[in-house]
This record gives sequence, structure tokens and C-alpha cells, in this order.
Amino acid sequence: MYKLDRRVFLQQSIMAGAALSLPNQINALASSKINKVRIGMIGVGFRSHEHMGNFLQRNDVEITAIADPQQRSIDDALKVFKKYNRAKPAIYKNGDYDYQNLLKRDDVDAVVICTPWEGHIPQGIDALNAGKIVGMEVCGAMKLQDCWDIVNTSEKTKLPVMMMENVCYRRDIMAVLNMVRQGMFGELIHTQGGYQHDLRGVLFNDGVTAYNSGVEFGPKAYSEAQWRTNHYINRNAELYPTHGVGPVAMMMDINRGNRMTKLSSVSTKARGLHKYIVEHPKGGAAHPNAKVKFKEGDVVNTQIQCANGETILLTHDTSLPRPYNIGFRVQGTEGLWQDFSTGGLHQGFIYMEKKMNKSHKWDNTEKWLSEYDHPLWKKFGQKANSAGHGGMDFFVDHAFIECIKRGTEFPMDVYDLASWYAITPLSEKSIMQGGQVQKIPDFSRGKWQSKKPIFAMGDDY
Amino acid sequence: MYKLDRRVFLQQSIMAGAALSLPNQINALASSKINKVRIGMIGVGFRSHEHMGNFLQRNDVEITAIADPQQRSIDDALKVFKKYNRAKPAIYKNGDYDYQNLLKRDDVDAVVICTPWEGHIPQGIDALNAGKIVGMEVCGAMKLQDCWDIVNTSEKTKLPVMMMENVCYRRDIMAVLNMVRQGMFGELIHTQGGYQHDLRGVLFNDGVTAYNSGVEFGPKAYSEAQWRTNHYINRNAELYPTHGVGPVAMMMDINRGNRMTKLSSVSTKARGLHKYIVEHPKGGAAHPNAKVKFKEGDVVNTQIQCANGETILLTHDTSLPRPYNIGFRVQGTEGLWQDFSTGGLHQGFIYMEKKMNKSHKWDNTEKWLSEYDHPLWKKFGQKANSAGHGGMDFFVDHAFIECIKRGTEFPMDVYDLASWYAITPLSEKSIMQGGQVQKIPDFSRGKWQSKKPIFAMGDDY
Repeated sequence: MYKLDRRVFLQQSIMAGAALSLPNQINALASSKINKVRIGMIGVGFRSHEHMGNFLQRNDVEITAIADPQQRSIDDALKVFKKYNRAKPAIYKNGDYDYQNLLKRDDVDAVVICTPWEGHIPQGIDALNAGKIVGMEVCGAMKLQDCWDIVNTSEKTKLPVMMMENVCYRRDIMAVLNMVRQGMFGELIHTQGGYQHDLRGVLFNDGVTAYNSGVEFGPKAYSEAQWRTNHYINRNAELYPTHGVGPVAMMMDINRGNRMTKLSSVSTKARGLHKYIVEHPKGGAAHPNAKVKFKEGDVVNTQIQCANGETILLTHDTSLPRPYNIGFRVQGTEGLWQDFSTGGLHQGFIYMEKKMNKSHKWDNTEKWLSEYDHPLWKKFGQKANSAGHGGMDFFVDHAFIECIKRGTEFPMDVYDLASWYAITPLSEKSIMQGGQVQKIPDFSRGKWQSKKPIFAMGDDY
Repeated sequence: MYKLDRRVFLQQSIMAGAALSLPNQINALASSKINKVRIGMIGVGFRSHEHMGNFLQRNDVEITAIADPQQRSIDDALKVFKKYNRAKPAIYKNGDYDYQNLLKRDDVDAVVICTPWEGHIPQGIDALNAGKIVGMEVCGAMKLQDCWDIVNTSEKTKLPVMMMENVCYRRDIMAVLNMVRQGMFGELIHTQGGYQHDLRGVLFNDGVTAYNSGVEFGPKAYSEAQWRTNHYINRNAELYPTHGVGPVAMMMDINRGNRMTKLSSVSTKARGLHKYIVEHPKGGAAHPNAKVKFKEGDVVNTQIQCANGETILLTHDTSLPRPYNIGFRVQGTEGLWQDFSTGGLHQGFIYMEKKMNKSHKWDNTEKWLSEYDHPLWKKFGQKANSAGHGGMDFFVDHAFIECIKRGTEFPMDVYDLASWYAITPLSEKSIMQGGQVQKIPDFSRGKWQSKKPIFAMGDDY
């Protein structure tokens, strides 16, 4: 009965932390601990490697099984196991639905889902229904109902879902969060974020090398270009909202005392991807893909209104030439921060009215963000820097494992996932209606009003 | 009959340039020239001084009359005349409507209107009906019908109106315009601008000194705080759209082959002005003005959609502490520019994909904007730099006078004025409706489709 007990423990203790309306006797279980977390990976393409690397370096994690329908992905994933000298996992590679057999295993406590976007919600729901805790990679929902479905399944199964938004852990962002929590920005008024990243070399390749190698997509391509590009053909939306909204949502206590209530999106014309195909040495005006019509506008801006009177502006800008810059802005009654590059502590402007004696001049961020380095970065910075994406992945994986072990609530939960993922289908509808305002559902059914912030409150995780 | 002939000439020749559907025999008159322009100034507060200084330095301009109900403004204005050793003008200071007597003078060819915002449209219409050409300072309309009224009156009287938007002539902006016209940004996709300027020290003073001197507004205050602050109490809107939209409108051929079709605005809560009053040494929580409720949100963002598929984002951000930065962004299929400060050539980031070998790294703007300095700045830069607002005012005044003398079309006309001014009441309505999309009227009644760009095409004006 060990396995069953263990599963029941995981369900009850984490959901007790999540403050779902469970009876008190279940809350009492939250003090229990487990020592080892057994993970199943669903989807082991490039994105999963950083998670796997982080997990396999820990002696409190085992990856017992992996699922992916592509042999190349399986082969690459096994190299990661070899690199860290860990036992080979069970493999599920027989088609798109073999992950459902992985879910039947008793030696999987939790799954981490790193699949093409379409798979996230159905796979997450299947995992919950199979009694597994879920860690979910970022994207936007295919349709609004998906967001309700994963919330409802999590509530029904009493199993938690972690939204694995790594940018919330970027060092500059966590320093700003630290400053916000110390009141240095005063009352927050407006924030900005988004995804401003030239993905043209990701959306097309030659089928062999993942990046900048050609103009193919779909079955003739490799990695993300196999599936991501189709979204640019079939949809016009804020396709990738979570990197932008996650970090500012944490600063603004979204879903914990505050809530996103409405959004409206506008889109430009689509020019960048067609031009890329036509101008690429392996493309040209006569290449068949030069006939493809892309629906996704090159720049999509989304205005979000919040219950406490703030606004959030998200920009999706991935089809044009540009330096990487998510474009964060955090503005309050006493301070203003804007980032302009890739997240280095010196790559931003800051203005702190009182501490800068009303100079009305920008200061470089380096001094400020170093001084207010978040306790988590102070403690784990060196370790994190050797992990993926400038350290962000270390923290998101660390939080996932620590919460499961301790039986505590995930710092980004299923309500965060639902409300962030919902931006995509709502923005799609808004654009279809010429920019009309859409209501953002309250997936927490009122619980946002009493929940308190829990993200990165100390230096544990 | 000289005076009448002169007026008829001015009407006919300039409107012929404006390509209103006038009979051909009137177009023939456009080749006539006049040598001296006689100006009446309506409103001679601080803002007018820079225009007057520019006009009085020219021997092709006389300011024959000025109107302002405030003695202090008249006294200050006369000092400008003295400074340039020019004849004292006729003075109209008997109340708010004495400008109507100025309009009766035969020695006024054109008026320049620099009054509180409420006055602009009625005074402009009165001036047109009195047979005067109009130069109009910037602001937003009080109501949408105002925009139609000034268009209709200009068409009826066959007299032109120049929208005197000085930021269109900022050196960095004109260099970017020059680059846009040379195709260096590729096809334009998205632009941003706005008015991000901490005006708290302008909106309140002590009634004696204009800036940063107290917490009074309305009758107890001096200069702009007398009237501008009331707009923040009574309205929630993109109050000041033209500095942001004008420059990008010129790059995007708005009203000349392109058109703004729709907008939607969202607003944050209002915190900055109340906090300013409470924290000011001359204010405090017990000061009567600490009870005033401000309606204008601290940050108002407006999304504009264009007929040719581009978007424009405008930000009004004037009640919070911040360094001055209008926040221009110009983004095309081959390049991207962002400004981050007060308009210095080095105060921006630029990315030109082809010329920068796909580096994916920002370059500082200085080298680029110097190399592509606009012909007007090359020719008049030294002269301009001694005028107001970093040279911008020199160019706007120069264009106003040169067009009248040459009988050519104004580079920013009544249709630009109407469509830019209209942003204010439309944004107000959008915010009242929670962000709903508003249609922007086609004030040109279709003529935008065939009109060609004329702004700053050479080095004349």
C-alpha cells in the first residue's frame, strides 16, 4: 500500500496547502514530508533537457519514465541521463498517446509536460485523472474551455498543477519584485511585458538543424518548427503570454488579492514570416512556402485591466528582426523600471523618485538590482547560473520539487495557469472582433480575494 | 482694395495647394507670392513666447496684434517685442472674447492660437469665419463634433489651418523619418509614442511662480495650472495625443494614403496627483486640495488601428514621477528604433537588420541619426538650436510662414488636426465603456486615399 499511501499523501498535503476547501483533518497531513520525487517526463524535446538536467543533478529526484513519439528526442534525452550517470528511464514512444501508459505507472508521482502546445491541457488532465501531480510548461490555451477544464480537474482530483513559468525567476525581475515588496515603487499603477523575440529562425529550419537553417515547417522540419509555425498560419492572437504576464502578475498579486478582469488586443498585418521565406538563401519567391498565408500579425498588443485598477500591456512580437527584449516595465507612484535587453542587471533604466532626489534622470539598473538581489538568488545564484536560461530554470525546477517534498502549495498554481493561458483565446476573439474587450473569467471562483501572495517569499524556493 | 485682394489671394492659393476640389482657374493663382505675413496672436502665455520670438526675428513677419485676458501675460509678451526691438502690437485684453475684435482687423492675415485648450476650436472657427488663416497649437478636442466643425469651417471658408505640432520636427524624429522614407525600416508595422512627462509641478503651483512651487490650481494658480488641471478632474482620456501621434503619423502617411480607423483606450487608477498634494511641503493631508478627486488615470494607453494594417500605441503618463521620455518606437520589417529619453541623437536604441549583419544586438542611435540627419536640420540646424524646445519650434514656425508666403499647402493641415484632436474624446468614450473600440471618423471624406505626403519633403520648410 506504500504507493497508494504516498499518492494520497501528495494529493492531500499539497492541496491542503493550496487552501482548497478541504476538511481540517486533511490539512493536518500537510506536515508530512517525502524524501524523493519520482518524475515522468511527457515530451522530451529540447525544452525538456534543461528540466531533466536540473532534476538529474538532485539526489531527491528520480526520472523514472519518459514519453515522446519521436525517436530523435528519445535518443537525445537518454544522453542527458548518461551525462549525469543516472539510471535509464522507462520509455514510451509508441505514438502520440503512449504517454497514457506512462501515467499508469505507480513509480511516477508527478509529470512534467514539455510537449507541443496543443498537448498541454489534455495531457495535464489525463495526468491529474491518473493521480499525478502536474508541472506544466508555458504556452497559451487553444480554447478558453481548456482553462476551465484543467481547473475543474485539479479541483476534482485534489491534485495540484504547477505553472512552470521560468521568467518569473529571472534575476533582474526578482530584484524588482523584491523592491516592489519593500514598497520602493510605491503603489503599482502600470506594468508591461510580453514576448519580443525574433523567432523566424526557430519557426523555420531545414529539418535537420533546429535553428536558422532553412524555410521548412511542419512535417519537413525539425523541433519547434514542426508544430509551432502552424499556430502562425491558423491563429491571430497573443500566442505566448506567460513570459510577459507571469513576472508582473507576481508583482501585482494577481489571483491573490488582485485579478485580471478584461483584455483587448489589436494586431498588425503579417509581413515578417513571408519576407523571411522569400529572402532566405534556401527559400525564395518560387519556394512553395512563399505561398503560405500567415494569419498571426507581426505585432500583437494586449491591454489587460485589473480589479485593483492597474493595467498590464503585453506585446507579442516574434516575426520581425529585433534584438531579444521582453520589454518589462514596472511603474508605481514612486518608481519606474524599464528593461531593454536580455535581463542582465545593467540592461535597464530605473527611476526612484525619493532616493534619486527627484533628478528626473534615468539611472542604470546595475547598482539597484545588485543591492536588492532577491534572497533566493543570493542563496542559490551560483548553482543556478550553471543551469539553463540564465538560471531561471534552476529555480522553477527547484520550486517544483521542494513543494512536492514539503507538501506545500506551488508558487504558481492552476489558477495562475488558467488565467495566463486564457489570454491567448481571449485575445484571439478580441482581434477577430476588431479589438473589442473580453472579460477574463475568475477561474478561482472568488478565492482570489482572500488568498495571500506566496511566490518566492523567502529563500527556500 | 489691397487688403481684400490679399485675403482672397491667401484663401485661394493655399487652398488650391490643399487640393480641395476647387475650380482650375483658382489653382492658377497658387503661383502668386506675398512678402510679409501679418500675424495676430490669440493667447500670449508662456507657450506663445517661443512662437513670437521666432516670428519677430524674421523680417517677413509682423505681429500686428495680440489678445489675452490676463495683464501679466500681456506684460510678458510685450517684453518679447522689446527684446527684438519690434513695434508694439495692438492689444486686446478685455476679457475672454476680445480676441473677436482682433479678428476684425484688416492687418491680420493669420492668427496663431496658443490659448487654454477649451478655446482652440471656437477661436479657430471664429478666425476662419473672419477670413484669417489659422495656426493652431496642440491639444485634444473637448468633443468629437469640434473636429468636424473646424474641418467644415475650413472647407466652407476655403481658408487653411495648420496644426502646429512641433515634435514632428525633433531632430531624432526627422532623421528616423528620413530613414523610413529611404526604406531602411522596410515596411512599417507598428509605432509608439505618447506623452510621458511628469507634469505634477506644472499642474500645481503657488499662484506666483509657474513650476514646482505649490499645490494650487484653478483661480489660485498661475499659468497652465489655472486651466489644465481641471481636465484631470473632469475627464479620463488620452488628454494630449498630438506629440505622440504626429511624428509617427508622418512616417506612416496618415491622412495621405493611410488613415487611423479605430482606437481603444484603457486607464489605470488615479493616484499621482493626490499623492503629490499630500506630500508637497505646501500641501499636506489637511490641505483643501487633498480632498479633490482626480478622474484622469495616471497611465492611459490607446491602441490605434490603421487602414493599411499598422498599429499605433499612445501612452499618456503625466501624473507619476518619471524622467521625460515620449517613448517613440518605430518598427518595420527591416528595422526598429526606440527612444528612451529627451530626444538627443544618442538617446535611443536602433536595430537595422541588414546593415547590422543580423547581429541581434542594439546599436546606440547616435551614429545612425547623425548620418541620416534630415535635410531641413542640415540646412537650418544651427539657427533652429537657438530657438525654443530644442529647435522644434523654429521649424514649425518657419513652415507656417513659408507656406503662407508661397501660397502652398501646410505640411500638417486641418485633417491632421481633426484626426489627432479626435483621439481625446474618442479615448474618453472608450474608457467610459471599459475599453470598447471606437471608430475614428474619416474627416477627409475619402480624400486621404489620393493625397500624397508633403511633410518635410525637401529642405525648404
